[in-house]
Order: sequence, then structure tokens, then C-alpha cells
Amino acid sequence: MVAGADGQALVALDRETQFHPFTAIADQQGNGALVMARASGSSITDVSGKTYLDGAAGLWCVNVGYGRAEISDAIHRQSLELPYFHSFNTVANEPSIRLSERLLKLAPDGMRRVFYGQSGSDANDTAVKMLWSYNMLRGKPEKRKIISRSYAYHGVTAAAGSLSGIPMVHQNFGLPLDFARHVSRPDFYRDAPARDCATEESYSAFLAQELEETILTEEADTVAGFIAEPVMGTGGVLPPPAGYFEAIAKVLDKHDVRLVADEVITGFGRVGAWFASELYGIEPDLIVTAKGLTSGYLPLSAVLVGERIWSVFEEASRDGRPFAHGFTYSGHPTCAAAALANLDILEREKLVERVAAMAPSFRSYFAETLLNLRLVGDVRSAGFMMGVELVADRATKAAFPASLKVAGRVALSARRRGVLVRALPNSDVIALSPPFVVTEAELSRLAETLRDAIDEVTADLVREEHL
Amino acid sequence: MVAGADGQALVALDRETQFHPFTAIADQQGNGALVMARASGSSITDVSGKTYLDGAAGLWCVNVGYGRAEISDAIHRQSLELPYFHSFNTVANEPSIRLSERLLKLAPDGMRRVFYGQSGSDANDTAVKMLWSYNMLRGKPEKRKIISRSYAYHGVTAAAGSLSGIPMVHQNFGLPLDFARHVSRPDFYRDAPARDCATEESYSAFLAQELEETILTEEADTVAGFIAEPVMGTGGVLPPPAGYFEAIAKVLDKHDVRLVADEVITGFGRVGAWFASELYGIEPDLIVTAKGLTSGYLPLSAVLVGERIWSVFEEASRDGRPFAHGFTYSGHPTCAAAALANLDILEREKLVERVAAMAPSFRSYFAETLLNLRLVGDVRSAGFMMGVELVADRATKAAFPASLKVAGRVALSARRRGVLVRALPNSDVIALSPPFVVTEAELSRLAETLRDAIDEVTADLVREEHL
Repeated sequence: MVAGADGQALVALDRETQFHPFTAIADQQGNGALVMARASGSSITDVSGKTYLDGAAGLWCVNVGYGRAEISDAIHRQSLELPYFHSFNTVANEPSIRLSERLLKLAPDGMRRVFYGQSGSDANDTAVKMLWSYNMLRGKPEKRKIISRSYAYHGVTAAAGSLSGIPMVHQNFGLPLDFARHVSRPDFYRDAPARDCATEESYSAFLAQELEETILTEEADTVAGFIAEPVMGTGGVLPPPAGYFEAIAKVLDKHDVRLVADEVITGFGRVGAWFASELYGIEPDLIVTAKGLTSGYLPLSAVLVGERIWSVFEEASRDGRPFAHGFTYSGHPTCAAAALANLDILEREKLVERVAAMAPSFRSYFAETLLNLRLVGDVRSAGFMMGVELVADRATKAAFPASLKVAGRVALSARRRGVLVRALPNSDVIALSPPFVVTEAELSRLAETLRDAIDEVTADLVREEHL
Repeated sequence: MVAGADGQALVALDRETQFHPFTAIADQQGNGALVMARASGSSITDVSGKTYLDGAAGLWCVNVGYGRAEISDAIHRQSLELPYFHSFNTVANEPSIRLSERLLKLAPDGMRRVFYGQSGSDANDTAVKMLWSYNMLRGKPEKRKIISRSYAYHGVTAAAGSLSGIPMVHQNFGLPLDFARHVSRPDFYRDAPARDCATEESYSAFLAQELEETILTEEADTVAGFIAEPVMGTGGVLPPPAGYFEAIAKVLDKHDVRLVADEVITGFGRVGAWFASELYGIEPDLIVTAKGLTSGYLPLSAVLVGERIWSVFEEASRDGRPFAHGFTYSGHPTCAAAALANLDILEREKLVERVAAMAPSFRSYFAETLLNLRLVGDVRSAGFMMGVELVADRATKAAFPASLKVAGRVALSARRRGVLVRALPNSDVIALSPPFVVTEAELSRLAETLRDAIDEVTADLVREEHL
């Protein structure tokens, strides 16, 4: 392990050599990196020896926890035997075939084939291209627009980033590209009152109507798809209001618009079901997965392709032409082996069932601990993903000025106290997504530390006369 | 290992579950998959026990060869210690820092930082977004078009696929998007005569002039970048004609257009230098790498960012805003560990030097063996990448009708004979890119098998009265 002096050397090297994702370069250059060294279970230790409880499971992904030698050993075995081969031109390998079989068995009904990539971003990009190709092959080349939602996060390739609805993903890049449209996010806490929607059902009806009006304004012949995270993640941890996907589905069916479920976060148990589509009765044409597929141990994404789209591709291939899309690493045998071992753990330890069983007490304990705090406007969750929304005034739900970075300060305070939580961009929401193996004691510590961090920041805001 | 019956079961499962990249679904459904099982050195064995000499190094990537326990062990060690953590918000890990340091030392002068992804596609997509952001931050939001070349291959995301110039990557997807433009590929063998260019230098001057005319027609204020594989790979294995990049650079400098070198294939030794940019005197603003970075053992890409672009991003970050781009797996510690072990092997065994030393005899031996064949119009190479162009008439360079799939038939014949080579799309070019550890005996077998395969197909074509 790297100790003090070496740790400082690493920070210096990082500053001079690395370009970090989603990082303010000035912060890297000024404060320097937090360098992680080793991890086990729900805990991770930095190079200085300080250990953190990881309340975020990396980036919503280390679902089975760190230190799973079973996955590392499976990776090692596969790497020694066949570390890599491509899957172009009908070449295959056993792990990716076994994984495909298993994914289709776990997936909601109607999924027919599995297409592999490396990340949620590339998988959403693949979904976009599949929708375009599907409509071109059906003789509808103009049917290309894809409707997403404000504050959605679907990744960062130029196309996936266009579907994302988080302003900073667009700013400074000239996105979205012109195929993307955005309707309202389903934020019952913050947005429903302004729509005069007193119930979740009426809010869902409003949102479905807005979607239909958008399709009609754009003209249905130009709209290929609608993409949604079943529980919006980075946009605020927003579970769907009651009746949302049912109301949406009717609109999409009516206008021949295909549904893409972005289950990059929710897939493989995060919401207490193997897929959120199953939990919410969603019947997608494409299901996009990554993160929990390998618990992040190796990069892997999979797009599950439903009957309507697969049958068009299969029919079109009779002219002998290839589906001219794919990656060098599509079906990577070592990454597939990691996924298989990860699924073994999820199944054997019944971790998806564990999330479902613990979710009610997870929610109620955090609500009890946090909802009486002056800054906490809302605590909402689905399975093991939770959003804690911080507000300046609980009665009016007034937000703090973004420049105060209130959620960021809370996350930093929690980190000093040895707990990692995420401050989401573009709103003062703290996101929690613990590993599925988190203990009751760790959840208590998570809640209490978050409470203490919020208390500290509250006191600071009072002292600074922001409250 | 899976034997006969199990092998057939895998083929059946593959047919029912997997959606292959760059594959004709009808071929998968009809002929079934070739399922690979294990590999060592330059050889790979399928589930039936048949062993092939891999003349393509997977997809131009398994540069250090298969069965490198040193890489697999490094992956294993890292996975046990810290299998994953993200690099968002100035968080880091030792392997990605060490790798960044090492990449900047190996890279051509002027590279300042390393940005990680998972594949060549996402890295080219990142390069596009960096160019857009660079110009927006410089107050030139209209300077967004990127000029590529016909038959280029830059990957398949909607943006990267737009830069690719291979027709089948565009067809059926409605690509390219409107930011992409394409000038002529540098194909001295096939295209120079029609341009009345007798020398490589005059052909380079012609191509540079065409580029400048394109920039002027589009208006330089709308052109952000020019992207090129130093040696065009999938488009035909086309080394640059003499003076090409020098002539191009003058045009780009004149019009404030940034140069992206796509070294996904050429990086890390394939052309007998660490980077082709070094070999050809190219001074890129961005260098895109993947494949050889890990020899394919794990998915990893890296965009090397030069001073001009980094300094703009660094300056812009003083307002505290993040560079809002990146992947869950950017800086993945396990993938970085694979890259470090791969670089150890390349350095310790002097494999880049080996490629440079063997390249002349590689070229001359293949030229001697193949150039006297009736079907072989051209044999061209750079380091350990070679293109063998098959033609119907060597005097006129007339191509075969695409429907005859002549190169595909040659590749299939070679495969039956136990040698893997690739038939490139959109032209009858056989590509060779052996692992750097290939022996002289294996190279002889590769050349002789290819000769025999070409002879077989020639005889078939004569019998079918196509010749």
C-alpha cells in the first residue's frame, strides 16, 4: 500500500497527467485528488489509510460490494484461458453466449437478443442507432427524433449526451443534437404542485398528455422513440409517479413510438427487482444495461433487444448484409466472465430479494432520521436508491442558490466524517445507493452521518446568514 | 474445454440469444457461430479443438499475443485489491495515475493530459466533443464541423460513425450527422492515377489542396477539426503517401483547424514505433488510442490531449465548473493495471523494436510470395499491418464485383486452412496484422496459406467463368 509520502507523490502525478471525468480542473489542480487504494465489502480506503463507508456504491454500480474474490478469480481464469476475442462476423465465445442466455432468462418477457458494449453511454448510443435503423428498414427514414426528459442522464457520447437532460452535459458542448427532444421530468415533489396535480395519478396523466402534445407538435412520423430511466437517477432520484408508465405506454403505442428503458442504474436489483421494468409494469422495446451487470468490476454494457425491433433486423439481414455496428470489445469474454460471476453472487446470496426486503426499513429509517431537519424537503426512494432533497424553505420548497453548493458541502462534510454520498448536479439532492450487502449497522451510520453533515452545513449557512 | 456436443449446444444458444456486432444475422442464423475457446501466443483454438494462426491479432489488437499470464495476473491482483472506483470529482486510483504518467512519457511531444474511456469509438466521440467544447470556450461556437476521409474507420457511436467513411457504417443508420465532412482517402495504388499524380509527393499535394478547398467551401470558421488514421486501417491498409501529413498540417494551421490522430490501430507499436505520429512527423492536438493499449485483454481507451486544447479547458475551469463529460469506467483501475502490464511486456521484450526490425522482411516476403499471383494487385504495409488488394485485372486494377465477395472467400479458405485473416469491407483487401510475437515460421505459414487460399479462389473464379 502507498503511504503518506507516496500518496502525495501520486496526487502530484495525477495533477500533471490525468484529465478527470466530470471534474472541475481547477479543483484537481488546487485541492488535488483523493486517491483510493483498496476496498472490501461496503468500505473503501484511500492511500492515507482513511476508510470510508461507500454510500454510493461507486457510481450506483458496486452492487455486490468490493473484495469479491469470486469475481476476481473468474476474471483471472477467463483471462488465462481466452483473454479476448472479437464477436464480429459470427465469431463467439462461451462466456458471452452463456451470459446472453442468462440475461434473456432474467429479463422481462419479450426480449429476444443481447448486444454488448462497454458502458451505459455506448449502450444508449447503440439504442439510438437501433431505433434509426429499425425505422429506415421499415421504410420510415424520417422517423428519427427521440424524446427524452429534462434532467435525464443517459450518458455522454454526442448522441447519448443529447438524450441526457442535465444542463451541464449540454452547456459548452453545443448539445443536444437536433434529433433529441425533452419533455418534463416526473418530479412529484417539486413540479406537481405547479401543474395543479394533487395526486400522482393526475400528475402522470398530465405528463402523458404533455408527451402526446409533443409527439403531435413534432409530428408522429418524425418520432422514433421515447427513452426513460424507470427511476430517474442523476436527475434527482425520482421514482415514477403512480400510473406514469401505463399512461406513457398508451401514448407511445398510439403513435408507433418505441420505448427504451434505460436500466443502467436500476437493472440487476437496485430497486429490489431484477429489472425496474418488471416492478413498474413497463414493456420496453429496448432495455439498456451496464453498471450492475458486472457490479463495475469490469466495463460491460448490454442492450436487450425486443421482438419488434429484432424481427425487423433479422428480416433485413436476408440480403446478406451485416448489421454494421459494434465494438472491438463487444462480447469480451473476460468481461462476460465477470458478469456471470456477479450474477452467481446475486442469485446465490439472494441479494435482489435482500434489497426488496430491506427497502421499507431503509426508507423509513432515513425518513425518520432526516425529515425533521430544517434543510430536508423530501426523502424518496426505490429499493436501494434514495434522494434526499435539501431546500432553503420546507414550506415553499424554495431551493438554495446553486452558487452555495449546499448539497456539495454536505457531501464533503460526510466525506470528512468517513462516509461517501453523492451530491447530484443541478439540484441540491444527495443520492444514496449503497451496495446490496450493506449491513443494518452501516445503514444506521450512513443516516446518522448524513444527519450530522446536514446539521453542520445548516449551522454554517446560519452563520453565513444564508438561513 | 467444451467438446463437440457442447460446442454444438453453444452454437445453438448463440443463435437464440446473441446479437453479434458487424455480422449478417442471416449468416449467424444459417451457418452458426465459430466459438473460440482458448488461445496462446499467436494461436487460438475453437471449441471443436481446431487451432488457428491468428494473422489479425483479434481485431488489430492482441499485440503481445494471447496467454500472457503476466497481464492476467496483474488484472487479478488489482481486482482483488481495488476492483473498481470512479474518477469523477477529482477522485483517482494509483494504476490510472501511473498509466497516465507512462503514456505521456511514451507519447509524442506536446501531449499534456490523458482522458480515459473504454473503446476507440467512445474515444473518438470524446475527441469530437472536446473539439466542440474547445471552440465554444474560445468563443467560436460555429466552428464545429469535422473533416474526415472516405473509407476511414473511427468507430460506430453516432458521432464516431459519422466520421467513419465506410459506406455500410452509414447506410441503414442515416449517417453521417451533419457536422461531418469527408475528403478523399490517400490511396496511391487505386486513386492516384485518376488524379494524374505520378509521385506520392504530387498526390499528397493534390490531397492537401482538396482539403483546403473543402475548408474554404465550408468556410474555415465552421471547421473545427480534421481526423485521420495515420495508416488507414479498415479502409484498406493505406500508409500515407510521402509528404502527406506535412502538406496537410500546413493547411490545418493556416485555417486554425485542429488535428486528431486516430491511433487506435497504430498506437503502441503496430507500425514499428510507439506512435505512428512519431514515425510520420505528425503533430496532433489529440491522439486517440485503444486496442494496443491493453492488447485487448480489457477494454480501455485513452485520449491524449495536447497543449492547445488542454490549456483552454484548464483556463475555463477557473469558474469552478466541471468538464461535464466522462464515463463510469473512466480510469478503471483494473483496466489500467492491464495496460501497465501490457506496456511492461512491450518494453521488456522490445516488441516495438522487433516490429520495426522485422517489418522489411515481412513486407518483402509477402510481396515475393503474393505479387506474382494473378489476383494480387498490391501488397502494402507499415510495420506489422499489411493490405493485400485483390483485383480482377492487374493491368487495369479493375475490381471484382462486390457481390462476388472475393476477399471474403479468400479469408474463408484461409480459415479452413487454419489461418485467420480479415477481409475488409467495401474493397477486396485482405488485412494482416499479426501479434508482435509472431515467429518467422508463423509468418511463412501465413504467407503460404494466404497464397494457397488465393490460388483456390482463383481456380474457383475461373471455373465459375468470372475470370
